[in-house]
Amino acid sequence: MNKSPLRAAVVGATGYTGQEVLRLLRGHPRVRAAVATSESQAGHAVRGPQALRYVRAEDVRFDDVDIVFSCLPTGESGEWAIRARDGGAGAAVDLSADLRDGQGGAVYGVPELWRADVRGAALVANPGCYPTGLLLAMAPLLEAGLVDVSRPLIADAASGVTGAGRAAKRDMLFGEVAEDYRAYGVGNRHRHVPEIAAGFARLAGGGAPVPFVFTPHLLPVRRGILETLYVPVASGLTAADLTAASAARYADERFVEVWADGLPSLRDVVGSNRVAIGFADVALDGAPLVLGVVAFDNLLKGAAGQAVQNANLMLGLCEEEGLFQ
Amino acid sequence: MNKSPLRAAVVGATGYTGQEVLRLLRGHPRVRAAVATSESQAGHAVRGPQALRYVRAEDVRFDDVDIVFSCLPTGESGEWAIRARDGGAGAAVDLSADLRDGQGGAVYGVPELWRADVRGAALVANPGCYPTGLLLAMAPLLEAGLVDVSRPLIADAASGVTGAGRAAKRDMLFGEVAEDYRAYGVGNRHRHVPEIAAGFARLAGGGAPVPFVFTPHLLPVRRGILETLYVPVASGLTAADLTAASAARYADERFVEVWADGLPSLRDVVGSNRVAIGFADVALDGAPLVLGVVAFDNLLKGAAGQAVQNANLMLGLCEEEGLFQ
Amino acid sequence: MNKSPLRAAVVGATGYTGQEVLRLLRGHPRVRAAVATSESQAGHAVRGPQALRYVRAEDVRFDDVDIVFSCLPTGESGEWAIRARDGGAGAAVDLSADLRDGQGGAVYGVPELWRADVRGAALVANPGCYPTGLLLAMAPLLEAGLVDVSRPLIADAASGVTGAGRAAKRDMLFGEVAEDYRAYGVGNRHRHVPEIAAGFARLAGGGAPVPFVFTPHLLPVRRGILETLYVPVASGLTAADLTAASAARYADERFVEVWADGLPSLRDVVGSNRVAIGFADVALDGAPLVLGVVAFDNLLKGAAGQAVQNANLMLGLCEEEGLFQ
Amino acid sequence: MNKSPLRAAVVGATGYTGQEVLRLLRGHPRVRAAVATSESQAGHAVRGPQALRYVRAEDVRFDDVDIVFSCLPTGESGEWAIRARDGGAGAAVDLSADLRDGQGGAVYGVPELWRADVRGAALVANPGCYPTGLLLAMAPLLEAGLVDVSRPLIADAASGVTGAGRAAKRDMLFGEVAEDYRAYGVGNRHRHVPEIAAGFARLAGGGAPVPFVFTPHLLPVRRGILETLYVPVASGLTAADLTAASAARYADERFVEVWADGLPSLRDVVGSNRVAIGFADVALDGAPLVLGVVAFDNLLKGAAGQAVQNANLMLGLCEEEGLFQ
Repeated sequence: MNKSPLRAAVVGATGYTGQEVLRLLRGHPRVRAAVATSESQAGHAVRGPQALRYVRAEDVRFDDVDIVFSCLPTGESGEWAIRARDGGAGAAVDLSADLRDGQGGAVYGVPELWRADVRGAALVANPGCYPTGLLLAMAPLLEAGLVDVSRPLIADAASGVTGAGRAAKRDMLFGEVAEDYRAYGVGNRHRHVPEIAAGFARLAGGGAPVPFVFTPHLLPVRRGILETLYVPVASGLTAADLTAASAARYADERFVEVWADGLPSLRDVVGSNRVAIGFADVALDGAPLVLGVVAFDNLLKGAAGQAVQNANLMLGLCEEEGLFQ
Repeated sequence: MNKSPLRAAVVGATGYTGQEVLRLLRGHPRVRAAVATSESQAGHAVRGPQALRYVRAEDVRFDDVDIVFSCLPTGESGEWAIRARDGGAGAAVDLSADLRDGQGGAVYGVPELWRADVRGAALVANPGCYPTGLLLAMAPLLEAGLVDVSRPLIADAASGVTGAGRAAKRDMLFGEVAEDYRAYGVGNRHRHVPEIAAGFARLAGGGAPVPFVFTPHLLPVRRGILETLYVPVASGLTAADLTAASAARYADERFVEVWADGLPSLRDVVGSNRVAIGFADVALDGAPLVLGVVAFDNLLKGAAGQAVQNANLMLGLCEEEGLFQ
Repeated sequence: MNKSPLRAAVVGATGYTGQEVLRLLRGHPRVRAAVATSESQAGHAVRGPQALRYVRAEDVRFDDVDIVFSCLPTGESGEWAIRARDGGAGAAVDLSADLRDGQGGAVYGVPELWRADVRGAALVANPGCYPTGLLLAMAPLLEAGLVDVSRPLIADAASGVTGAGRAAKRDMLFGEVAEDYRAYGVGNRHRHVPEIAAGFARLAGGGAPVPFVFTPHLLPVRRGILETLYVPVASGLTAADLTAASAARYADERFVEVWADGLPSLRDVVGSNRVAIGFADVALDGAPLVLGVVAFDNLLKGAAGQAVQNANLMLGLCEEEGLFQ
Repeated sequence: MNKSPLRAAVVGATGYTGQEVLRLLRGHPRVRAAVATSESQAGHAVRGPQALRYVRAEDVRFDDVDIVFSCLPTGESGEWAIRARDGGAGAAVDLSADLRDGQGGAVYGVPELWRADVRGAALVANPGCYPTGLLLAMAPLLEAGLVDVSRPLIADAASGVTGAGRAAKRDMLFGEVAEDYRAYGVGNRHRHVPEIAAGFARLAGGGAPVPFVFTPHLLPVRRGILETLYVPVASGLTAADLTAASAARYADERFVEVWADGLPSLRDVVGSNRVAIGFADVALDGAPLVLGVVAFDNLLKGAAGQAVQNANLMLGLCEEEGLFQ
């Protein structure tokens, strides 16, 4: 490396996403974590090879860093991202849900879908984990008009526990989650539903809304999201058509993998920044639908990985830096 | 206990379902395991408090037992059940898929739906695990005509690993299943699909078939099945209507629990012979549907528990004997 | 059943041990749960087949029940057990650590070691989970003088998470425990150490103390304890000697299993009230030692199961009632 | 990167260690996987971003690669490593147990202990997973004479399932391993025992053998080894002395972390090439001993990570290349 590395601050660095950003930056050739904040751990060393101590967020001088990752809980995170941008940091990515509606001038950052918006942006709202997979899986289909929007898409999703954060809650104890599987936020009441609806509408070109039912479940795994989609399609369309459209759409993308046959599972993607998508036909007369499965790591492409990908674009770096192994 | 207990033989007693039948019989007040077969373990003691050794199936005298549980793999199990019945055992339950189409005169045994068939029968085909939950959840709705059969039911299901049996397969290694979640047998190609279709048709009263899409997934848990149903309903019907119909239908059933609110998870049922059912509304305009969740233990109500329940009916015992704690 | 069942109260019924006592009583032929207390769930129904609602502990009339199981956290539980006994309940078992030093006149209840103390007692302190296994494994060896007490016993133990209770703690989240394994309370600083020391001294007949090092670890499993013992023995003694002494000592015990060969694992005992013990020789010259492994279910023989066993003795019932399947 | 990368061949690339070597090479700045062999997958694409297909080992031209990682099962792997070295590959690392006794002129490769041997070697035997941790933890103590070798070291160890390889075995099914914990290869009969003994003897300077008892257990986790050591020390020595000696010994090592206080757990190291070591005092009169815990990722520092570290030294690269993230 012949240039001095860029300096990053990770605000809220002890949660699952903050820790994952720190981990990624340890392997990033151009950006290093120069600051990590934690109220409870202030003064303590950050675990790992680098010599870094947690500081309080209040004490960060944002004009001294090049990029800020705000990893605090929703409700707190967005204002820190704005404060960082306004305080002199070149760029800020907010990993919470606070700015996903564009508040503060934030750009919604799914590079594969809206890369031009992200390149050079000063403030990016990193998408939610569930929406990331749904939007990437449905984009080629909606853009190409393959979806019958007169019938609802069914999105049955399952996530590992790290999606719920690291706060102590009885329902998230090992003794409660191990050997369990449960639905939650059902009936389109999960907080990601408006974000998904807005994304679908944008992808569909603004016409009628795209109806869907979204049901998340909690899996007894640490990380990974798998979403099983029942896609209503126009009569005559098959899985091969959806695969072809998706493969063409993502031909040049390093982080989206369209499977020619078979369906991905968590094991195929966890630990990487990749999203894997596959389709299968359903033997069913009448109302035609195609089955889709999209899988990815909720902490990487669903959070920290996509945040670094966005940061790379914001900083004018190669988009993949620090994201391959 | 003032009568001498009835004698049971468990054929194929070292697999997951066979072991579970043995475990249940240890707590059964009226039936005890007198014979357990295993080709590979013949001569070895059965683990547990009773003094019992595995014998080869060939060596069992079926006229010396009152009830036989055939727990061998599909393809082998059915003929042993028939052989047991014909060889003098009073009654035989086959836990495989071999006789579920009525072969050999077998009665399909879901007590809550077709109890009269089972009572006193000499040969019962114990239902598949996935079908058990789907039929119990949909029966009240199909019988009452609450389902719009012009649109397909979506049944997104997830099962623990014991549903796949105990044979050594690379895909079922701990290293492959832990931290994974995967769909399999998708596109209505799972071997339970014809059984589900036949059950739905019978429940619907024989008219048009009930269209459905069934997608099983493999969960990293030992036991339990949870099925998330997207039920197409006639306009105006809500979760409350489906709950009311189900609660009325199962008011006198000890092993079916209809939840007035909330949705069951694996933890609520695993370890018991109960099936728990709940419904929830979905905020969605147009094509009306109601969300349903049904959860149960695949080795109990989905296999060994229901087999004992059937056996109790066949033997004229109280249906719940040995099935509570 | 021709007598009306005895009535039990479970104080603190929503934790892991309280729930397990309730589950056992559902299968108990002579005792039923008539009262279950919970401050947070008061008024809500107890999950399961029986019609029972949680009440506040304050509102229990102890003269209306035959036996009380006090399952509150250590620090609160003991005084409720005493209050129950003094308030008219025939008998009370305290499952916490509060009374294990004999406070309140409580008898220390390991039936296989000190059965006569328990029979007919009005107040029993149920032993700790780790001590139960250690005392049962070491008793035959200490009583027979097979242990070289000039060298320390090493007891390396591992427990499932339910041993730590059901309070919400970050360290016990699924995201922290899954895929982890950690030592805790090392250096003989675990709160069970004095209880173990007292038990060993009693078993050794009161002479010199029995030196030991106890190191517990947290396993990513829900239930089960396995303790690996490095037993210093007199020169010339082998595993066979220890096995023989143990088998003889426990020949008439239903809940203690001494393995003639092989070593038990969690799977062999979890879900049962049994303790399994095995020994193996170590190829090592000099300082002779024999390896021992003891395994049991921390919620059954390590807590609720042993509590019911004690209660049966206190009430003059058959000791095994409700404890088999 | 301004030089063209070196070319690596991974022989036996579909097992857990082979896959891990491939994963590491994807992030290695100087070495890339040019060849991956598999008999069963020959012709199929290697999953991941690179364009690589499995070939049969027979078809590899070893003079066309710079480094070979032989990841076949013990019994097959060593001869392939020798064949690779003799066939023109610059260097070969064997990850099996075949060459750990020096066969074929192989050097035993623990860089932190015997770095000079590895630098520039043509053939390296990568150490076993359990021995790696034990040797690194004990080296500073044995070298400094802090261990009382008249009493045995007790090494109670626990490993995740990937240490057992990826072959289909019933005992390694998810249904058997989940919620279980078991000892195996007890009594110093594990195949790593001679390797550990040889390493200890070398570290102790050749005098009397260092007596030890090694007991491995199988953990229900995918990866990670934690070894709990009961170290007999000379009278008066405390954990602080052992910590100080270890910290001094490894002051310049990037992959060995000595904890000043607290003890490491799997979570602290899994996913990294680091070994973490901690010590704690034991409140025990008489025979003085200090508790030690060493933790590391069995697939990284215990296998593939150490293999890459060795390869870096053999190829004259920076030792840490490709091992940080």
